[in-house]
Amino acid sequence: MGDRSREFEVTKHGAGATERVRDAVAVEDPLEIRIGGVPIAVTMRTPGDDEDLVRGFLLTEGILLDPREVAAVDRIDDSRVDVRLREGIDIDAAQFQRNMFVSSSCGVCGKASIEQVELFVRPAPAFAVPTHVLRELTARLGTHQPTFASTGGLHAAGLFAVDGEPLAVREDVGRHNAVDKSIGAASTQQWPLPPTLLVVSGRQSFEIVQKAALAGVGGVVGVSAPSSLAVELASKLNLLLVGFARDATYNVYAGEERLVSQ
Amino acid sequence: MGDRSREFEVTKHGAGATERVRDAVAVEDPLEIRIGGVPIAVTMRTPGDDEDLVRGFLLTEGILLDPREVAAVDRIDDSRVDVRLREGIDIDAAQFQRNMFVSSSCGVCGKASIEQVELFVRPAPAFAVPTHVLRELTARLGTHQPTFASTGGLHAAGLFAVDGEPLAVREDVGRHNAVDKSIGAASTQQWPLPPTLLVVSGRQSFEIVQKAALAGVGGVVGVSAPSSLAVELASKLNLLLVGFARDATYNVYAGEERLVSQ
Repeated sequence: MGDRSREFEVTKHGAGATERVRDAVAVEDPLEIRIGGVPIAVTMRTPGDDEDLVRGFLLTEGILLDPREVAAVDRIDDSRVDVRLREGIDIDAAQFQRNMFVSSSCGVCGKASIEQVELFVRPAPAFAVPTHVLRELTARLGTHQPTFASTGGLHAAGLFAVDGEPLAVREDVGRHNAVDKSIGAASTQQWPLPPTLLVVSGRQSFEIVQKAALAGVGGVVGVSAPSSLAVELASKLNLLLVGFARDATYNVYAGEERLVSQ
Repeated sequence: MGDRSREFEVTKHGAGATERVRDAVAVEDPLEIRIGGVPIAVTMRTPGDDEDLVRGFLLTEGILLDPREVAAVDRIDDSRVDVRLREGIDIDAAQFQRNMFVSSSCGVCGKASIEQVELFVRPAPAFAVPTHVLRELTARLGTHQPTFASTGGLHAAGLFAVDGEPLAVREDVGRHNAVDKSIGAASTQQWPLPPTLLVVSGRQSFEIVQKAALAGVGGVVGVSAPSSLAVELASKLNLLLVGFARDATYNVYAGEERLVSQ
């Protein structure tokens, strides 16, 4: 597992007994992302798949519109990477910061946040999902969570084709990092993305649906609950939004028309 | 419940059956925080207890060192509040942004992040926790989660005295917001805080331990897993850090010497 988990001395207090053991803990460490030498963001992430993370982050935050604009992701050290853009591609890196959509100063409110995302969204290709695929997706995600098994401390996110085949599954202590890693990994294989669904182990917040929309992902499927703004954004953008997908049951909050009983 | 949850039309796909129902979803909406008219942060939060959220945020992000520096939190509209400081208190609001500790440009790495927090930490008063209190804390938190019960979509955080008495318990779609709300609410009752523990429904990340440390909270207790950097920060600051606190069992990752068998 390398440095995705680290062992610590832990005291386990059980029913009436106490034992001192070594326990694996998910690693969390900052990564500074630079573009052409200019720091644009620091994210607390689990090391590993850093290049996927950076490529995904640039897409899902709307900093780049095409993954092929990246010439290389150069590693400076364990905590810093520098993105080199292709010749002729020039961006004002200094203007970018995390949460730039919601922190825009013009009329902040749920409606304004949705309108901001609409300006940058990449329309997803048309698709239909067989209901039998939806019944299996979160279980499939679970089969790709090796570090969760040892630490209990990681989120997983996976990009799956609408027939249920995984394109990329990644883990991280941060929900949004796991999403960026899986989208970044898939984007290097095929771009624009084919019809895909983002499957997440955690809650489906506005930020997660926003990231899917900016990368051209067709829907978000999660084990847990969506937020109100996530439902409203998915409805507005005609994305599929599925929550509480467990044990072959699930709730459809938006995009019901994408489903095909099968 | 007011606007902490909102109802949506949802299709529930069960084993062989499908039904259309109205389902309660946790509300997520942006709140812009201004100080003296200058926007310093936008957070995606669940409405309600906005003033607690703002007061806690200012403390746990190290923007103010004393809650009594706030003269008033004026509401501009549903999505904006403006903090008025007491006469004679002047800060350079424009320099502040979320995650200012980890995004400081000098030598970003886990060790540097911990050293940054050390500069701003408020030492917690000496305390000892009876083990029987630790066995009950997360169950006690659960009794204060009304909106989670209806939506399944909210985190809870509570500040508890070391004898197990709750000072303030709050809910939010964001883990960090729930923490800020509970600390903000408690800080208006007593400051500096008495010996307290922060109890959280989610994972114990670096950010959560950092927030506790900056407010002078003595420890963090969670239902779920801590991250490596959270363990390292708690060890460095002599905070109690307890994870996987469920069904009267728990793991102590740091600060074992705070416990008294009882």
